[in-house]
Amino acid sequence: MTTEFNPEAALERMGLTLPEPPPAGGNYVSAKCVGDLVFLAGVVSIGTAGVITGVAGEDRSVEDAYAAARACALLQLAVLKRQLGSLTAIREIVSLNGYVNSAPGFTDSPAAINGASDLLVSVFGEAGRHVRAAIGVSALPRNALVEIQMTVRVEAE
Amino acid sequence: MTTEFNPEAALERMGLTLPEPPPAGGNYVSAKCVGDLVFLAGVVSIGTAGVITGVAGEDRSVEDAYAAARACALLQLAVLKRQLGSLTAIREIVSLNGYVNSAPGFTDSPAAINGASDLLVSVFGEAGRHVRAAIGVSALPRNALVEIQMTVRVEAE
Amino acid sequence: MTTEFNPEAALERMGLTLPEPPPAGGNYVSAKCVGDLVFLAGVVSIGTAGVITGVAGEDRSVEDAYAAARACALLQLAVLKRQLGSLTAIREIVSLNGYVNSAPGFTDSPAAINGASDLLVSVFGEAGRHVRAAIGVSALPRNALVEIQMTVRVEAE
Repeated sequence: MTTEFNPEAALERMGLTLPEPPPAGGNYVSAKCVGDLVFLAGVVSIGTAGVITGVAGEDRSVEDAYAAARACALLQLAVLKRQLGSLTAIREIVSLNGYVNSAPGFTDSPAAINGASDLLVSVFGEAGRHVRAAIGVSALPRNALVEIQMTVRVEAE
Repeated sequence: MTTEFNPEAALERMGLTLPEPPPAGGNYVSAKCVGDLVFLAGVVSIGTAGVITGVAGEDRSVEDAYAAARACALLQLAVLKRQLGSLTAIREIVSLNGYVNSAPGFTDSPAAINGASDLLVSVFGEAGRHVRAAIGVSALPRNALVEIQMTVRVEAE
Repeated sequence: MTTEFNPEAALERMGLTLPEPPPAGGNYVSAKCVGDLVFLAGVVSIGTAGVITGVAGEDRSVEDAYAAARACALLQLAVLKRQLGSLTAIREIVSLNGYVNSAPGFTDSPAAINGASDLLVSVFGEAGRHVRAAIGVSALPRNALVEIQMTVRVEAE
């Protein structure tokens, strides 16, 4: 199978630099490979100024949550680069679960999680399309606005 | 391996017709195959009259949530039929995560999610039995009452 | 591959006895094997005195939630022992999702879920390290304080 995308070049074209991958916030690891799947731990939204906090539908807008989800996806790419050496080892993004710190009744978690999905499709093209669930939750670590969990497929060894 | 069930005949015996599979509510796909697993995106509860909305333990009963979970399972079967051509390609239902839009302290998410589990066992028999988690969450897309995410196993190519 | 750990001996050294595996709380199964992966249903926190209930950040402390998460991990090991015959069949803990029944704004779900992660690392050593997500949710079955879902890898047949 040939790689039909160059994710690192795509990031450069988009003017994006990968952040430092976040340290694990507990007694766990950031990534684990089983066969050709890489399971990633959830990462919370951290930007250049620290944790992006708050509650969608309360003190944060859908746009804020979109930006937070995008920041999560960048962090996951940074984790994958550290784990795999290069993003070109990735064959496809399989699944993404997005948790939005939400006021009761907040209905726009899909628009928020598009911040992660849009980035992944921009970087990987068709191979970046994934299944996902968007969920509004009552609390996230460090009062983060968004948490993203992902599974990707890599070239079989 | 022989198929010991005929899911499409079971649906017919139950007087059920598959709904239109829902369009993705964001920049993602409804199903993704990796090896012999099919990962499905979460679907929210949609019935013939549109999105089944509300909050269990607030303006919705356990029975309402049971019906909503059942509607989610039917939608997932519709997605699988579109993806696979036929439901007979399915070897087993592996896992199901059920998210119930819940008032704080709502304790009956398992009874609600049985709406999906019961349908799957009715349609697939023993092969329909799955692992699952039932979770009460503070907000779901479009104010849906239930969201269901699933993974199934199909015949290896 | 040689097993570099003896989980049953580790439990004994820690003075821990596996509890009775919990019955499924709905129409589902506790464990399902697909290839070399074992998917486990979510289990809620049950101790010797019954369900460990309550809401972190409201009537329960982080320490209470840590103990509840640890109880969940013990229950999952009991499920795995029943399913596999022995815990030595386990090659590694792959992933763990921890849901903490949380007051809005509770920020310490990672510290709580460490109760499960720490136990697994104590029992399995390096092979016990997993990816995970820690989420605060508005409601759990039976008003449990914590629910844990896991996936493990076993020796391929």
